[in-house]
Amino acid sequence: MSEKIYVGVDVGGTTVKLGICNSDGTLLQTYEGPTEVSKGPDTILHNIAKYVKLIVEESSYEWSQVGGVGIGIAGFLDIPNGIMKNSPNLNLNNIDIKGFLEKELNTIIKVNNDANVAALGEAWAGAGRGIANCVMYTLGTGVGGGIIIDGKIVEGFQSVAGELGHMAIVPDLEAIQCGCGKMGCLETVSSATGIIRMAKEAVARGDRTSLVEVEDIMAKDVLDAAKAGDEVATRIVNRAAYYLGRSMSMMSVILNPEYYIIGGGVAKAGDFLFNQINEVFEKYTQEASKDGVKIVPAVLGNNAGVVGAAGLILRG
Amino acid sequence: MSEKIYVGVDVGGTTVKLGICNSDGTLLQTYEGPTEVSKGPDTILHNIAKYVKLIVEESSYEWSQVGGVGIGIAGFLDIPNGIMKNSPNLNLNNIDIKGFLEKELNTIIKVNNDANVAALGEAWAGAGRGIANCVMYTLGTGVGGGIIIDGKIVEGFQSVAGELGHMAIVPDLEAIQCGCGKMGCLETVSSATGIIRMAKEAVARGDRTSLVEVEDIMAKDVLDAAKAGDEVATRIVNRAAYYLGRSMSMMSVILNPEYYIIGGGVAKAGDFLFNQINEVFEKYTQEASKDGVKIVPAVLGNNAGVVGAAGLILRG
Repeated sequence: MSEKIYVGVDVGGTTVKLGICNSDGTLLQTYEGPTEVSKGPDTILHNIAKYVKLIVEESSYEWSQVGGVGIGIAGFLDIPNGIMKNSPNLNLNNIDIKGFLEKELNTIIKVNNDANVAALGEAWAGAGRGIANCVMYTLGTGVGGGIIIDGKIVEGFQSVAGELGHMAIVPDLEAIQCGCGKMGCLETVSSATGIIRMAKEAVARGDRTSLVEVEDIMAKDVLDAAKAGDEVATRIVNRAAYYLGRSMSMMSVILNPEYYIIGGGVAKAGDFLFNQINEVFEKYTQEASKDGVKIVPAVLGNNAGVVGAAGLILRG
Repeated sequence: MSEKIYVGVDVGGTTVKLGICNSDGTLLQTYEGPTEVSKGPDTILHNIAKYVKLIVEESSYEWSQVGGVGIGIAGFLDIPNGIMKNSPNLNLNNIDIKGFLEKELNTIIKVNNDANVAALGEAWAGAGRGIANCVMYTLGTGVGGGIIIDGKIVEGFQSVAGELGHMAIVPDLEAIQCGCGKMGCLETVSSATGIIRMAKEAVARGDRTSLVEVEDIMAKDVLDAAKAGDEVATRIVNRAAYYLGRSMSMMSVILNPEYYIIGGGVAKAGDFLFNQINEVFEKYTQEASKDGVKIVPAVLGNNAGVVGAAGLILRG
C-alpha cells in the first residue's frame, strides 16, 4: 500500500490556503486560491472542493492516497457534525461544510475552528512535536487558544473550548470590558489590541514615554520601546505578561500540560516577553504542577493552520 | 457470557472501602476493612488484595466475572504505571500498587488519586450520569477536583491535573499564602479551612457577628450564621462563592464542560451557596461558554470513591 497523505485547508476571509502533509505532519506541498466571500456560501464551498482537487492533481500523489481532508475555519461551529453555525467574517450561517465536502470529495472530512487547528498543528508537527499535552496561546488582535490533551483537541460540549482570551483573569478593581461584553478578559490586557489600548491611554494621560513620538502606535512599537528601557512601555508589557503567566499557572493546576506554545505577532518579542511570563508562572504555580513544564515559541508561523487542518484526520 | 462486574477500592487512612459495580456504575455490594497503615506498605497491599477476594467471594458473582479492579488512593501517583510516588497519609513511597495487585489478583488493575476517582464516580454514575464533560469540585478541608473530558479523567503529563484548589485566583492585594507555599490559591478562601480562618479572623478583629458565641467555629457554623442573616458570615460565604464562581468561569472558556458537580461538606449549604456561585459564574462567563452549563450538587456522597474506582476500568 502506498503512503497516505492528508490535505489541510485553512479558510481565511481573503485566501484559502491548502497543504498536503504525510502522516508525520511534514508539509509536502502547498496551494492557495481566493475565498471569494462576496460570491456567497456556495462559491466558497465549491472553491474549497476545487482547490483540494487541484492541489492533489498538481502533486506527485494519487487521489487514492488521500486519507482525508481537514478544514480550519473561523467561527462558531458544531465541530462533531462539521456545521458552521455562524461565521461573521465569511458570512456563513448554518452551513453543512462536512456534508457538502464529503459528497463532493468522497473522503473523510473533519472541520474545526482556526484557533484549535493552529494549536493542533503546533502540537502535532511544530513546537510540540512528540508532546501529548499542550496548550497554545495565539497573541494577535485577540488572544486565541487551543488545548491538546493526549494528542487530541479538546472541543468542549458546545464546541467552544480553548477560548483562552476570555478567561476572566483581571481583578474587578482594574478590569475593563472586553469585546465579548464581560469584564476582565485576558485579551483586554495581553492581546496586541490590549497593549495598544494601554499605550494610547498612557500617552493620552500624559505619561512620560517615548511612545508620544509614534503616530499610530502598534503593539510592536510598545514592545520595542519596552526593550529599549521605556518605563511606561515596560509597565504595559509587564502587565500583559503577568496575566498570561497567571493564566498559565491556573491552566497548569487544572490540566497539567507539558508545553505552553505561544504564537502570534506579540510572541515575536521573544525572550524579553517569555522571561517575564516564566517568572510569573514560576511564582504562582505549585511545584508538582510546574515540574518539567516548558513555555516555548510556536515554530510553524502561518503554516500552523494548514498543517493542523491536515492533522485533524489523524488527531482530531 | 455472564455479566461483567468491576471492583472499586477506596483506600483511606483508616479504612479500605470496597464496592462491586455493574457496567452502568450501579453499586451492587459493599465491604470494608481496616487499612492498618501502622503495619507498613506490605500489609496495606495484602489487605487490599484480601478484601477484593472477600467481597467477590461473599457476593453472588464469580471471580471469572470480574472485569478489573480500580483503586482510588490519596497521594502523588504515577497514574499510567500505577505507582504511588508519595502518600504522606498512608506512608507509602515508590510502591508499585498496580504491579503487586496484578500479580496477586491476576486481573486488570487501574490506580488513580482519590479526587479524580470521586469525580469519575459522579460523572459516570452520579450527578453527571450521561454527561461526557464535567468538572468536579470537592469542598472539604481543602478544595479537591477532577476533570472529566469525553468520559475520561484528565491525568496531566505528570499525573497532577485537577488540582483545582491550587488555582491562583485571589488577586495579590488580598491573597494569603496557601499550604502549598504559593499565594492566592482557591482553597485559601473556598475550603472549609478557608471559611473557618476568615471567620476566626473576623472574630479576632472584633467584627460584630453571632460567631463570637461559637466556641470552636466550624464551616457549618459560618454557613448557618450566613443563612440566618449574619452580615459578617454572609460576607465570608460570598467570598468563598465568588472565587468558586470565578474559577468556573475560567474553566468554562478553557474546557467548556457541561456540568460542574460540587461535593464535600461545604456543598451541604445547598441552594444558598449554589445561587451565589451561579450569579458570579453568569456575570463573568461569555455567552457561548455558559450556554447550557449547569452547576449541580454531587449525589453519591461517600460512595463516589468506590464507584469511581470501579469506573476506572471502563472509563479510566
